[in-house]
Amino acid sequence: MTRVWRCLRSIEPAIATRCFTSTVRRREVRRLAELPPRLNPGFRETSSHDLLALQWPSPPRNVLLVPKTDDTPVRAALIEYASHIHSAYPDVSLCFEPTVASEIESELGFDIYAPQPDCNTHYNDKIDLTSTLGGDGTILHAASLFATAKSVPPVLSFSMGTLGFLGEWKFSEYKRAFREVYVSGAPSPLPTNLDDKQTVSDGGSGPKVVGQSGWSSVRGKTMGTARSSRILLRNRLRVGIFSTEGERMPHESPFAHQDSRCEDIFALNEVLLHRGALPHLAHITILIGSGPQQKVLTTAIADGFLVSTPTGSTAYSLSSGGSIVHPLVSSILLTPICPRSLSFRPLVLPANTPITLRIDSENRSKEVEVSIDGVRRKQGLRAGMEVRVVGEEVRTAGAPGSRDWVGGVPSIVRSGGAVDGDDHWVGGLNSLLKFNYPFGEHG
Amino acid sequence: MTRVWRCLRSIEPAIATRCFTSTVRRREVRRLAELPPRLNPGFRETSSHDLLALQWPSPPRNVLLVPKTDDTPVRAALIEYASHIHSAYPDVSLCFEPTVASEIESELGFDIYAPQPDCNTHYNDKIDLTSTLGGDGTILHAASLFATAKSVPPVLSFSMGTLGFLGEWKFSEYKRAFREVYVSGAPSPLPTNLDDKQTVSDGGSGPKVVGQSGWSSVRGKTMGTARSSRILLRNRLRVGIFSTEGERMPHESPFAHQDSRCEDIFALNEVLLHRGALPHLAHITILIGSGPQQKVLTTAIADGFLVSTPTGSTAYSLSSGGSIVHPLVSSILLTPICPRSLSFRPLVLPANTPITLRIDSENRSKEVEVSIDGVRRKQGLRAGMEVRVVGEEVRTAGAPGSRDWVGGVPSIVRSGGAVDGDDHWVGGLNSLLKFNYPFGEHG
Amino acid sequence: MTRVWRCLRSIEPAIATRCFTSTVRRREVRRLAELPPRLNPGFRETSSHDLLALQWPSPPRNVLLVPKTDDTPVRAALIEYASHIHSAYPDVSLCFEPTVASEIESELGFDIYAPQPDCNTHYNDKIDLTSTLGGDGTILHAASLFATAKSVPPVLSFSMGTLGFLGEWKFSEYKRAFREVYVSGAPSPLPTNLDDKQTVSDGGSGPKVVGQSGWSSVRGKTMGTARSSRILLRNRLRVGIFSTEGERMPHESPFAHQDSRCEDIFALNEVLLHRGALPHLAHITILIGSGPQQKVLTTAIADGFLVSTPTGSTAYSLSSGGSIVHPLVSSILLTPICPRSLSFRPLVLPANTPITLRIDSENRSKEVEVSIDGVRRKQGLRAGMEVRVVGEEVRTAGAPGSRDWVGGVPSIVRSGGAVDGDDHWVGGLNSLLKFNYPFGEHG
Amino acid sequence: MTRVWRCLRSIEPAIATRCFTSTVRRREVRRLAELPPRLNPGFRETSSHDLLALQWPSPPRNVLLVPKTDDTPVRAALIEYASHIHSAYPDVSLCFEPTVASEIESELGFDIYAPQPDCNTHYNDKIDLTSTLGGDGTILHAASLFATAKSVPPVLSFSMGTLGFLGEWKFSEYKRAFREVYVSGAPSPLPTNLDDKQTVSDGGSGPKVVGQSGWSSVRGKTMGTARSSRILLRNRLRVGIFSTEGERMPHESPFAHQDSRCEDIFALNEVLLHRGALPHLAHITILIGSGPQQKVLTTAIADGFLVSTPTGSTAYSLSSGGSIVHPLVSSILLTPICPRSLSFRPLVLPANTPITLRIDSENRSKEVEVSIDGVRRKQGLRAGMEVRVVGEEVRTAGAPGSRDWVGGVPSIVRSGGAVDGDDHWVGGLNSLLKFNYPFGEHG
Repeated sequence: MTRVWRCLRSIEPAIATRCFTSTVRRREVRRLAELPPRLNPGFRETSSHDLLALQWPSPPRNVLLVPKTDDTPVRAALIEYASHIHSAYPDVSLCFEPTVASEIESELGFDIYAPQPDCNTHYNDKIDLTSTLGGDGTILHAASLFATAKSVPPVLSFSMGTLGFLGEWKFSEYKRAFREVYVSGAPSPLPTNLDDKQTVSDGGSGPKVVGQSGWSSVRGKTMGTARSSRILLRNRLRVGIFSTEGERMPHESPFAHQDSRCEDIFALNEVLLHRGALPHLAHITILIGSGPQQKVLTTAIADGFLVSTPTGSTAYSLSSGGSIVHPLVSSILLTPICPRSLSFRPLVLPANTPITLRIDSENRSKEVEVSIDGVRRKQGLRAGMEVRVVGEEVRTAGAPGSRDWVGGVPSIVRSGGAVDGDDHWVGGLNSLLKFNYPFGEHG
Repeated sequence: MTRVWRCLRSIEPAIATRCFTSTVRRREVRRLAELPPRLNPGFRETSSHDLLALQWPSPPRNVLLVPKTDDTPVRAALIEYASHIHSAYPDVSLCFEPTVASEIESELGFDIYAPQPDCNTHYNDKIDLTSTLGGDGTILHAASLFATAKSVPPVLSFSMGTLGFLGEWKFSEYKRAFREVYVSGAPSPLPTNLDDKQTVSDGGSGPKVVGQSGWSSVRGKTMGTARSSRILLRNRLRVGIFSTEGERMPHESPFAHQDSRCEDIFALNEVLLHRGALPHLAHITILIGSGPQQKVLTTAIADGFLVSTPTGSTAYSLSSGGSIVHPLVSSILLTPICPRSLSFRPLVLPANTPITLRIDSENRSKEVEVSIDGVRRKQGLRAGMEVRVVGEEVRTAGAPGSRDWVGGVPSIVRSGGAVDGDDHWVGGLNSLLKFNYPFGEHG
Repeated sequence: MTRVWRCLRSIEPAIATRCFTSTVRRREVRRLAELPPRLNPGFRETSSHDLLALQWPSPPRNVLLVPKTDDTPVRAALIEYASHIHSAYPDVSLCFEPTVASEIESELGFDIYAPQPDCNTHYNDKIDLTSTLGGDGTILHAASLFATAKSVPPVLSFSMGTLGFLGEWKFSEYKRAFREVYVSGAPSPLPTNLDDKQTVSDGGSGPKVVGQSGWSSVRGKTMGTARSSRILLRNRLRVGIFSTEGERMPHESPFAHQDSRCEDIFALNEVLLHRGALPHLAHITILIGSGPQQKVLTTAIADGFLVSTPTGSTAYSLSSGGSIVHPLVSSILLTPICPRSLSFRPLVLPANTPITLRIDSENRSKEVEVSIDGVRRKQGLRAGMEVRVVGEEVRTAGAPGSRDWVGGVPSIVRSGGAVDGDDHWVGGLNSLLKFNYPFGEHG
Repeated sequence: MTRVWRCLRSIEPAIATRCFTSTVRRREVRRLAELPPRLNPGFRETSSHDLLALQWPSPPRNVLLVPKTDDTPVRAALIEYASHIHSAYPDVSLCFEPTVASEIESELGFDIYAPQPDCNTHYNDKIDLTSTLGGDGTILHAASLFATAKSVPPVLSFSMGTLGFLGEWKFSEYKRAFREVYVSGAPSPLPTNLDDKQTVSDGGSGPKVVGQSGWSSVRGKTMGTARSSRILLRNRLRVGIFSTEGERMPHESPFAHQDSRCEDIFALNEVLLHRGALPHLAHITILIGSGPQQKVLTTAIADGFLVSTPTGSTAYSLSSGGSIVHPLVSSILLTPICPRSLSFRPLVLPANTPITLRIDSENRSKEVEVSIDGVRRKQGLRAGMEVRVVGEEVRTAGAPGSRDWVGGVPSIVRSGGAVDGDDHWVGGLNSLLKFNYPFGEHG
């Protein structure tokens, strides 16, 4: 595949370093930096269910589409979906990862946006809404694009196959789904001409007037606040890797700002330590707490060790014997992988427990591999090095008594036709895991 | 054993029905009703650890001692402990369950207190502090004395053997332990003569002056607020049993007020449904949510089914394959017992999830047994009957931003010599469960 | 239901004690004692598969039909099946359990046979072939009719629903199935007039001439020895119960000869010890070996304890976490039920290991319940009492190098249209257990 | 370390190809080829226990010592042990692996033996008895030296630490242990001058007279046949690897004859397929049976898959959730590693079941790693390639009714002071696995 970046550094270095292109043509992959700054939606508690209600200050403008790669049906669905959004929501700008953008630009009759490798403009500066097409892996990948961002835009996920735990919608519902998200939190009835009382918080740049091209352009009637998109804030794990001297080591996330290499990285599913292809079992000491209250919990002698979120409890942790934990239980799961012990039962700890995994001096292999959400760090960990993990804080923000929440990955949960609270999780259990399938009588 | 109740109804009915005795003698089992009303201590957040700090408004006065039954060393320890308290804290009145009181009264040289069967005075009207001597079973039993109380006094537990998960103290530490609890939250230095600025909340009866015999009588210096007793508020399960017509059925707790028979009952460890001695497997449909959002999760075809608190996660649920859940994780565990399925993995749900267990119409046995904290209900459940469970709310009380907590069973957690946060749980894992004991090499 | 026994002891005691009735009428429930003695088929090794080939010395004559009780479709199927056998195989006598016989005799236009309670004639003296209609429970019940017999006739099982592990046939195949079993081992081509060279072993009563009504009456061609019915000899457990003084206690099998009450009883699936409805855990010491080599393996503190055959490995043991063991693995499974231990992994021992389960003196409940193949013994076991178990010997019989086998329950395994060896087990795993149903990706 | 091979091909090619050295010096590492051929001991059934009795035709002469590597205390023990054997049993020749031989030759005052890389003389042509010093890993390594041999010499194992499942002796017992093995099966009393009636089977080279230096040189009295060394014949797995075209691929065992590269290799513990460091789960289809009866059992989507012997049931399989299977249960264990399924319970199949593991075409990783007894094959397996496994046949040999056994790895099981059958396994369970360690009461 040919790379078709328009920001050609060798030709127009002065411009490239200023991070915009000199010419604007039609049907182009344009730079993310050209887009207006990101909107910050609210997530409000409701009385009708345990999830939160999405409330846009003004219609979302910058939408990132993340498809499963190397999958022909997903590719076709992506084109259809993108074309629909462009046609029905003309004010929306569609963004893609660079490789995706270069692959599909010729099939779309309009400009699209992508980040440029050497610019400091990143997804979390611009993206209002992410939408994925594919399975769990695609959602994980989309989350990894915001792995160093403390605030993540909402994610609307479509599945081409089985619906799972992550609140996915059927792709056939894409028109209803996108519309529902787009108008979530809009005043009812939808304004035909929004006046300047409609203030918009857009990352600190002050109130703005939303013009005719806002919600007023959406045909049909709104659904009112009671029918806002339902948001599940999925806790992540904040992960840092430390040298034997206790110094923070740079992470390898390719999506991080250059200057955030030495910050924590966030995991949506899990952090995995594993012996990999090495013959010897990993020796990993698990400590809980921090500072003077830090205590050794135990030393795992095992193929590996997992620290998972509740969201990750139905992923690798489940294969390793962990319990299924509802994503609203604020917790961290510790699950050993093939431990050399009959008595290492999985543990569930409070989300705010600082967990340290230290490679033990008894560890006989040269290195233990570390992976975050399934992406392996190139360099493994040697004895004495540590992975420090703590659950991301998901909490009410602002004044005491506030009902607005911050933190986590805001996942837009599929709504059915009628009132339905928690059924995506129940549905995931039963359809995806084939949970509790009974066998022949013994009684 | 002879019953030695002083309230002899056949002789002095008029007095007995008024619930006090006409004569007051020495070395007697006196009536609980004679004691002053219960104090309501505060449980404050601290910055130094995840537990709460116990804060008495004035020194505790009515202390209930609950020993393990039929155990000679525990009996001897009880006498020693009671004698110490009486001697060192003369203002404290010692209370016992009736059978215990009648057994030990002759060995103690002072009056003790016990409830009378036919009076409406109950433990939760009077008891400021409960202290147990024995194991887990004794703590469970002590908690069951408050099974219908929404507010439970703090519990100080001593173990004669292995320390476990419940924050027990070694019995040999009883002098230090009791003193630490007694003065917890007292001003520092201890007042020699508390004036009337020291107001006491004692269940609504207004401020009271605490006399010389209060904290001022305690020899030695106080430990200051920083060294307050550490409290873990253990969530309980609120349990109601409903007929096929959806009507609440009376529970059988012998410790409940007569007029609270039709209220919910609280469980500290778990609610168990089990086929008991019947040959056929129980068919139990599990529903989550309430009202129009209630949904069938699954139907368990199994020997039984457990709904547990995190505290109960190291009890029966652990034997049935459940995960170990830290008591600070606000959650409910659903664990099947010998299910007829290869794929019924234990579940962890948010504590505020309403859970309904409905005996399925397919259930072939006449009745399914129900037990709460190990005490079996005499009458089982027939098809169509329901057990409804929800986690007790443990929350900050009062004004927004308050750091004072209510709900749950306030368990006084053993403190070591130095600053130590969470080590009773780590200790329980390692010493009690023999967690993660490694076996021979395979690598 | 009215009991219609013809052997009326009060009227004709002399005859009754001789165990036959004085009058023979049509459409009657006749006495089992009237039937010729049982035939002993051979079970030969073959080169084509791991199962054995059934070889009748002469056509089976006495066939016991055992239906699932209280099931209307099964009742209808039973009538159809019985009528077919009577019509197509006129020399076959159909036998039933007494209650079944009395229920269906009026619907059948021919005599049937049943044992009489007070006679010493039992199923294993007479029955050549047992055929069940129903599920696992019905097969277990049929096996229990031979629970004190060292030699059990072959069992042909039909299922009205899902086919499972026990080699069942679909009921719709009953004509083919019965014919295949009936002619199994017959010379090919079927004799039109068997001469006296065809000798029949029938329990020691000497050679007999099989008349025209033998195999020669079966229409159509035989299938030859290569297509003999395939037999799986299922090992059973030999179980004895012993008092605290080491004396054998009578078992309670209602199907045993009066004089075999103090012999061992056989279990096809499992022996279960369980605390039943009692609150305290059972303490059961497990010893292996016998005589001076007997050793304590461990003491189970648990809800219960299972000793299972490989056949039983897909029954209760599976619910309790046991492995799935193929019925041809000569072994005994030890599986705890909800043990108070993190490290009690299920065990698989050689079938010839003597296992003793002794109720420990620490056992706090008065009694531990004991059940054999799901039937609970009325009287439980007290501390010091023992259950002694050893796998039934299934082995080649007769001269060295013999390829003929004895022991176990000869289960006739369903054959498909083509050559197929072991597929009933693979089929059971996949269709019945929903074995290895994958869930969503984590990789 | 300097390599001290005496067979210098570049200098004396003619001699080297004839595989002996031209000069014989003292204190040398001599060639294995110089030793007399291997003796074939008998393994007889006994009536006193389930193990077999070792019966040498004449005293063992060629003893291979295999120490744990890089372990100082083991090195010292090895010197002590070797010196004792040389001094007390002068007719015994001590053999070592080449690297070990070169390391210790200078510390021993006598000649030792080792194989030469380019000769066709291998351990299984010469070695009468193997003795290991170390743990499980050392025993596995010793077994791997005979990984292509159908007949393996007895193994006497010493542990410096905990005794485990493999029948090890304490090193402090080495004098008694070696003597017991050396005289096992000798006539009683030991002959002072064995005459020529004592015929010796030594691999086909005809009867030999054993001279004065045989058992007659052993001081003290024999123990008689009743006290023979007890042998457990451990089944191995016969493993072949096949290309996508169904052609056998050479194995990589460094200890195999050059001309046996394309034969099966034997595993004592297990064959492991694993995704290794690759992110995608392995897709492995498991087939059972062979030829036209081969059937798909299931497809494992998992981190890996194990086929284990009962001996291996307490190794990796145990970490992965497998049952503990006694080594006398003739069986094969199938255990998935972290399967993407809630319902993949471990399986136990008959030892003679042909098992095929085929890399599925859905497998997304380029290769799946394969390891035999913990040694990884350098080249992994691609889609369509197969690992074919079947349990080694362990059976009575010779005439019908013979009580002599062949096959497996003859492990010499530690005997205690008194009669004791099976206690090494019970001991291993309790001391090594900390099996069934109970936790705090829940009843």
